Amino acid sequence: MASRVGKASLRNKIMSAHEAAAFIEDGFNVGMSGFTGAGYPKAVPVALAARIREEHAAGRPFRIGLWTGASTAPELDGALAETGGVGSRLPYQSDPITRSKINEGTIDYNDIHLSHLGPLVREGFLGNLDVAVIEVTAVTDDGRLIPSSSIGNNKVWLDEADKVILEVNSWQSLDLEGMHDVYEKFALPPHRMPVQMTRPGDRIGQPYLSVDNDKIIAIVETDQQDRNTPFKPLDETSKAIAGHFIEFLEHELKRGRLPKELLPLQSGVGNIANAVLAGLLDSPFENLTSYTEVIQDGMVDLIDAGKLATASATAFSLSPDAAERMNQEAKRYRRNIILRPQEISNHPELIRRLGVIACNGLIEADIYGNVNSTHIMGSRMQNGIGGSGDFARNAYISCFVTPSTAKGGAISSIVPFVSHVDHTEHDTHVIVTEQGLADMRGLAPRKRAKLIVEKCAHPSYKPMLEEYTDRAAKVANGSHTPHDLAQAHEWHRRFLAEGTMVPS
Amino acid sequence: MASRVGKASLRNKIMSAHEAAAFIEDGFNVGMSGFTGAGYPKAVPVALAARIREEHAAGRPFRIGLWTGASTAPELDGALAETGGVGSRLPYQSDPITRSKINEGTIDYNDIHLSHLGPLVREGFLGNLDVAVIEVTAVTDDGRLIPSSSIGNNKVWLDEADKVILEVNSWQSLDLEGMHDVYEKFALPPHRMPVQMTRPGDRIGQPYLSVDNDKIIAIVETDQQDRNTPFKPLDETSKAIAGHFIEFLEHELKRGRLPKELLPLQSGVGNIANAVLAGLLDSPFENLTSYTEVIQDGMVDLIDAGKLATASATAFSLSPDAAERMNQEAKRYRRNIILRPQEISNHPELIRRLGVIACNGLIEADIYGNVNSTHIMGSRMQNGIGGSGDFARNAYISCFVTPSTAKGGAISSIVPFVSHVDHTEHDTHVIVTEQGLADMRGLAPRKRAKLIVEKCAHPSYKPMLEEYTDRAAKVANGSHTPHDLAQAHEWHRRFLAEGTMVPS
Repeated sequence: MASRVGKASLRNKIMSAHEAAAFIEDGFNVGMSGFTGAGYPKAVPVALAARIREEHAAGRPFRIGLWTGASTAPELDGALAETGGVGSRLPYQSDPITRSKINEGTIDYNDIHLSHLGPLVREGFLGNLDVAVIEVTAVTDDGRLIPSSSIGNNKVWLDEADKVILEVNSWQSLDLEGMHDVYEKFALPPHRMPVQMTRPGDRIGQPYLSVDNDKIIAIVETDQQDRNTPFKPLDETSKAIAGHFIEFLEHELKRGRLPKELLPLQSGVGNIANAVLAGLLDSPFENLTSYTEVIQDGMVDLIDAGKLATASATAFSLSPDAAERMNQEAKRYRRNIILRPQEISNHPELIRRLGVIACNGLIEADIYGNVNSTHIMGSRMQNGIGGSGDFARNAYISCFVTPSTAKGGAISSIVPFVSHVDHTEHDTHVIVTEQGLADMRGLAPRKRAKLIVEKCAHPSYKPMLEEYTDRAAKVANGSHTPHDLAQAHEWHRRFLAEGTMVPS
Repeated sequence: MASRVGKASLRNKIMSAHEAAAFIEDGFNVGMSGFTGAGYPKAVPVALAARIREEHAAGRPFRIGLWTGASTAPELDGALAETGGVGSRLPYQSDPITRSKINEGTIDYNDIHLSHLGPLVREGFLGNLDVAVIEVTAVTDDGRLIPSSSIGNNKVWLDEADKVILEVNSWQSLDLEGMHDVYEKFALPPHRMPVQMTRPGDRIGQPYLSVDNDKIIAIVETDQQDRNTPFKPLDETSKAIAGHFIEFLEHELKRGRLPKELLPLQSGVGNIANAVLAGLLDSPFENLTSYTEVIQDGMVDLIDAGKLATASATAFSLSPDAAERMNQEAKRYRRNIILRPQEISNHPELIRRLGVIACNGLIEADIYGNVNSTHIMGSRMQNGIGGSGDFARNAYISCFVTPSTAKGGAISSIVPFVSHVDHTEHDTHVIVTEQGLADMRGLAPRKRAKLIVEKCAHPSYKPMLEEYTDRAAKVANGSHTPHDLAQAHEWHRRFLAEGTMVPS
């Protein structure tokens, strides 16, 4: 098989991951590719982890700032975090070892709206980007890059990094060529221009990533698959949530507030989002579109069923089976799928213009509709805000979905006062649990509270929520958003002390 | 003097405010003009208040939904709220009587991002708009409307209301003609288009408001000035805040992260914002621009000094003296000033593209940079979020300014855990008090806390904040954002019980 490094003059940069990792020094900020376990470098991070361990063993300090698109995989986040050599991390992660270091206080984690990171780096607000490590599918004869299964922040890293290391992964299908659309007109103000996109399927850039070839210091060849994890089989809770959500969409269609092909759908990552997509298979909606971060199995099924005309995202997040199918049939799927930089997939300008219907998960919501997406009991980071704020703030309809309880009922997802706020009451239109759906558009706080408790809370917590609401109404210093501050976090405190929010 | 109703066929609609108010029925949603005390209707609301009182006296129910651009004036919000006939209110208010009814629980207040309201109404999510009551400067011969001292949501109300009542106010200068720029290409998705603006001074619409003349059911002539309140003389606290902020801008310029004419400035309404503008008079910056909600005295002074080339806003918010000057010299000022619909002045797409430097006030911030802009001690509504979220979320640099204490020192503006969140840690870059400035860009939560306490807290609260931070680090279930939930709101509870946050 011919080399995937098409440009002959770049082939002398091909080397081992070990050799490439030697270019990375203590104190560097390193921008790596990768978004939800797709398209991350698979060899250099592991080699870098070995290098860090050697340096530490020799008594020398070695800590990097690690920047990515979003979450990655054990070979990247896990391997590096384990060494203790990750000093800071941004903008999102979902790795168990990284999470544990963040919550021990040994990794400084900067949890950032995914649409904000690219601009912040370009603006020079986060310091110098020393090196980029980017997985690609191939390098063309003229030195352009065919992206792999995610784009994420790759364009930013290639533009801004002093030096570039490429991983050329032959596991990625060459038929991905042409699926990507890399917008190139990023600029700093006062030179920013309108992004001329009006439909999720519009192509506004190039199918290749371009990079100053002189910055390429190493090319590493790999052949490893992405971290693709199976989705859980649909359970009754997920199906009930999906059912309420789709019934709501049908209601909005009847009221004339949604067109029959709906508006572009965004769905968060995970099993509930996938259940919603599965529910759409049997819905009356046709010619759907999505404008979202990741292509999940449910979207591929919708494409196969002829229901989903266009899916725009920045990455795949597929089960191993679906990833295999994508690799085999990328040529067919690229008629329906476009992968873009996350500066575009998550762009407030585009989310608002297109009128995206946003559907994101949460950790907990309070009775007034404030949403915590990130923190367990106020202090402990779970994953991060990701793109949920980009979508929730700018959506046509902003929905949040969650089972009404967690930990076998020990935690209520609906609480009096969230222990951390990522999305304020101003940005949450609809909350859905398996119990029901609360449509809060146009409601003042006390009416929101009544509706959320009635429709969304689990029956075992409903009386406690009603009791809180009644007591708050009596003791609060104002009746707009009545709270009893002495009891606001009582449930969280009980969970921390006793392992359950249920009083003994 | 010739009539300001130029179109002859509309003159038979001229009537008294009393007659016009008779068109408004119980249960109506009424969209009124008005933004920060400028351009609100001055006669019909008072007449409507009288009508409501009569109906109530006769034992008949009469409650309306009252929608505006933002805050108005005693003749509008005050007069109507006093009758008990305002059932619901949105999207912003700052009226003492309305505030008190909201906090008694008799007005349902829907506190909404100013950029969101227009779209929500056009999308049909907030119900039918029965009648619009709009102040204008004049009606042209062909039935177009010369806007007055604010535009706010007038374009939405004129487009969406079933019927329209105009107030033609001859106090407003005819020289305002040509100052306004009314964008007309609003559409619902999937038909929304890019807003083709790249500079704060771009004109992208018409100088007139257009309306289906058949919807006009009444025209009322008035001659009353806007509610223009004097700014307080600059005090030492405001001057210190302005000084820190301008020093920061100078630092960013030196670092090459701001151009020498800066980027478009947004500043919230009020005395501190005005102090910042006054500070810019003596700064090295030239050829400034602003892209903001309101034109305050400080901006007019900057224009007069040749420092401010373009000021884009949706309304004036002037002292009586400056308003007089504006009325006399509107012809000159309209070379520098553009008034736009608030769907444009506050548009996320434009704020992000232009790279606005946002500077807003707050009620309290916590050690991690979460900001409460609306609620006193968690439950009691003060004014509302207004446009602060539109700007903070999408700004190039998002700054919040506040004195470090309130109520003579009984309240610390920096607290362990805010009692309500309007702007999350993800959206706050810089916090400034008279004590100093905390630049939190790129910092993880624990480092933010250290910096905010060190730079911004008042010395009398600093030890208490350090004590909280230390204790939280010990007891929290995670070290990412350490909190002691049992004590998180202790300061607020103490204030409610004892009238001060200082322990006795």
